[in-house]
Amino acid sequence: VSKQVITVGRDVLAQTRIEAAVFRDEMTRRGTLLVNMISSPGAGKTALLAATARHWSTRQQGRRPQMAVLVGDLATDRDAQRLAPFVPVVQMTTGGACHLELPLVERALMALGDFKGEFLFIENVGNLVCPASHDLGEHLRVILLSTTEGDDKPGKYPKAFRTSHAMVISKLDLVPHVPFSIEAATDDAREIQPNLTVLPLCSLDGTGIDSWCDYLEAERRKLLARPECV
Amino acid sequence: VSKQVITVGRDVLAQTRIEAAVFRDEMTRRGTLLVNMISSPGAGKTALLAATARHWSTRQQGRRPQMAVLVGDLATDRDAQRLAPFVPVVQMTTGGACHLELPLVERALMALGDFKGEFLFIENVGNLVCPASHDLGEHLRVILLSTTEGDDKPGKYPKAFRTSHAMVISKLDLVPHVPFSIEAATDDAREIQPNLTVLPLCSLDGTGIDSWCDYLEAERRKLLARPECV
Repeated sequence: VSKQVITVGRDVLAQTRIEAAVFRDEMTRRGTLLVNMISSPGAGKTALLAATARHWSTRQQGRRPQMAVLVGDLATDRDAQRLAPFVPVVQMTTGGACHLELPLVERALMALGDFKGEFLFIENVGNLVCPASHDLGEHLRVILLSTTEGDDKPGKYPKAFRTSHAMVISKLDLVPHVPFSIEAATDDAREIQPNLTVLPLCSLDGTGIDSWCDYLEAERRKLLARPECV
Repeated sequence: VSKQVITVGRDVLAQTRIEAAVFRDEMTRRGTLLVNMISSPGAGKTALLAATARHWSTRQQGRRPQMAVLVGDLATDRDAQRLAPFVPVVQMTTGGACHLELPLVERALMALGDFKGEFLFIENVGNLVCPASHDLGEHLRVILLSTTEGDDKPGKYPKAFRTSHAMVISKLDLVPHVPFSIEAATDDAREIQPNLTVLPLCSLDGTGIDSWCDYLEAERRKLLARPECV
């Protein structure tokens, strides 16, 4: 049996927390709202980001917000290919790992160039468990729950819901065809996280996309209004 | 900084592999086919197991196969409650962990009592990543992909598909309402695992449940026909 000494100390986690806080502060200084999107595989993160880009890029009045996406997967660049027609995007592949960590996100941001737009989205690996335990320096954590997954999921995956600021209920168009109650899902999630903002929407037909974009813009205004942000 | 010596050797994984093999052999000796069910959250593992129980319990001709379920979740006993009206079931809660490991399964089986029926199902934690790396001593690994998740998932979560024997395509009733091609999903999965058995079905209306049950019974017959199984 080979032996190897591993030094285990409180420093490890503290260091990760510090690095996330530093990254968050840097984003705040730039005026960029950093959003970490978490969900099961296939809940519609990529479709929502495409719909968000379409919504802002076709805005008639006022400034059109600039956004970019750092998208994570175990393998393939399929999501980056889907998003590339709409927004600047960098694919991160974890090579099998079940969640994103900050160093990979930082490298991806460098690959994006000097992004100073209003909104930077991290599309995490499709996984309702592991990403919940990793702070990527985001200002907002958004969890997507699709109507086809069932309204009993929050209680079964509590950490992901407890650590999120908003819950998007996606695939609203399928409600007539599946056993799902928006009210039951909301109650179950707010049992865990009472302050959760709930945003039902459908990315394919555009229902609720305006409220989602309004929410993001309001959160960015709050960020800019903070005293430390000059 | 506190220090702690961790002995890292090949023994750790080898021991786990040995224990899984021993458990598999014990199941083989009992004539019980052990099936490990893996999928994203909400893909319909519990619904499929309920439909399987209904199918067998209402069989008119021949012996009705006996089945039991060990069901895994991070928290709550919701799935066990759903299954309890149909089959013997034990809920395993991981307390936040992202996959099941063999010792928990062995304890759950003990809680079930002296089960010697034909089919024992392990419903893993809803997660398309981490459960793929853990051998629970199963004879068959079955991955569920629901039509609402999209047909691009196999390539994005390759290990789960590569290590599976069969892919159930669930929620067939929703195909008219979602962008999903059974052919594309099958091609993508077989690119990774050419020997994959593909079984499209709908647990709610019963479509394909007979083929699924036939498949399981055929796999059990193969198991009993192996020379080491006396």
